Amino acid sequence: MSLPPALLFDAYGTMFDVQSVTAALNAHFPGKGAQLAQSWRTKQLEYTWQRTLMGRYADFEAVTAESLRYACALHQCEYSQALWATLRERYGRLATFPEVPATLAALRERGVRLGILSNGSPAMLDELIAHHRLTDTFEAVISVDPLRRYKPDPAVYQLAVDRLKLGSDGIGFVSANGWDASGAKSFGFRVFWINRGGLPAETSGFAPDHVLGDLSGLL
Amino acid sequence: MSLPPALLFDAYGTMFDVQSVTAALNAHFPGKGAQLAQSWRTKQLEYTWQRTLMGRYADFEAVTAESLRYACALHQCEYSQALWATLRERYGRLATFPEVPATLAALRERGVRLGILSNGSPAMLDELIAHHRLTDTFEAVISVDPLRRYKPDPAVYQLAVDRLKLGSDGIGFVSANGWDASGAKSFGFRVFWINRGGLPAETSGFAPDHVLGDLSGLL
Repeated sequence: MSLPPALLFDAYGTMFDVQSVTAALNAHFPGKGAQLAQSWRTKQLEYTWQRTLMGRYADFEAVTAESLRYACALHQCEYSQALWATLRERYGRLATFPEVPATLAALRERGVRLGILSNGSPAMLDELIAHHRLTDTFEAVISVDPLRRYKPDPAVYQLAVDRLKLGSDGIGFVSANGWDASGAKSFGFRVFWINRGGLPAETSGFAPDHVLGDLSGLL
Repeated sequence: MSLPPALLFDAYGTMFDVQSVTAALNAHFPGKGAQLAQSWRTKQLEYTWQRTLMGRYADFEAVTAESLRYACALHQCEYSQALWATLRERYGRLATFPEVPATLAALRERGVRLGILSNGSPAMLDELIAHHRLTDTFEAVISVDPLRRYKPDPAVYQLAVDRLKLGSDGIGFVSANGWDASGAKSFGFRVFWINRGGLPAETSGFAPDHVLGDLSGLL
């Protein structure tokens, strides 16, 4: 498999494990961490889509907080500012999936240009990048925030084309989120779907070019 | 509670019970009907949002079929054209929730103008309306289909304003879907959220004007 000149990575769920907040949730609400994390993530994504459709953008930090409030209400756990402060702090240092650091280093050695295209707010992304000492790894860390629209709006993917100054056919897009992979394929990227969980392929007709078990499959 | 001059109803989940396909799913896949129905509905909605964002509209019949295919794959059940034919037929005669016929009749008697605003394709809505002999009940049955965008895009709610020739403040919007109630509130309707399942309120900040346990609360 030959690689394109540039690879653009989704952040949450692709390089950084959002389920790694489960432990913090479990500490607050014993035995409920997994279901809270699941409901939180689902609602977080739903709000990004619905807010974009409604023309009511709020940044990813705000959406992440409001969706946590919903998940807590759903599972009858008490939401508080202190809880959010703890989890917001965790969000700034989410774990990477195990293969991520070595894979990124190897791609850099091969001369592949690397970037991030994420729903995350600039502040959230900056924290993660600094925490994992990845500042020199990525030539572009692109947030949807200036556009005030979330993925899979095609204008989001266009941000990366403009920033990297490459045609969409020169950019490989890497995401573990099936819907994000579909959006990127619909836009025109060459798409690598990272299917960590052995999920079914999306059935809406924008199949990825490659399906990999984790990021190391890029090498 | 005084009622506005016109009430506009969401269809699926609000007047018609989409979970009523569970029995048919259970007949095909014993013991798996409930989880299949749940995953199917979730994916169906996700595709409406994502396709609208991507500018890749497909009508509600197509989205309903493709999301069934996904749900079947997720739960390791075999999808087939025969299965879809059976369920598509069921979709055309979904049960109403028990209080619906009497509530609609009483509202008509009080002189309230009644309409439907739905993601459903015109063919799907026509079948349901005919099956339940509701043709004379609604002065307008409005599908998103001509617009090729799904709720909660504000252009969808505008369709109803244009059709009923009333300002958004003269129209009450009735939906059991929290995200649809939020979208309608953001647009400017007076919103009645039917919270049949005792779910938490949406936390994205567009609270409904009224929360009712079922449609009979309108009377």
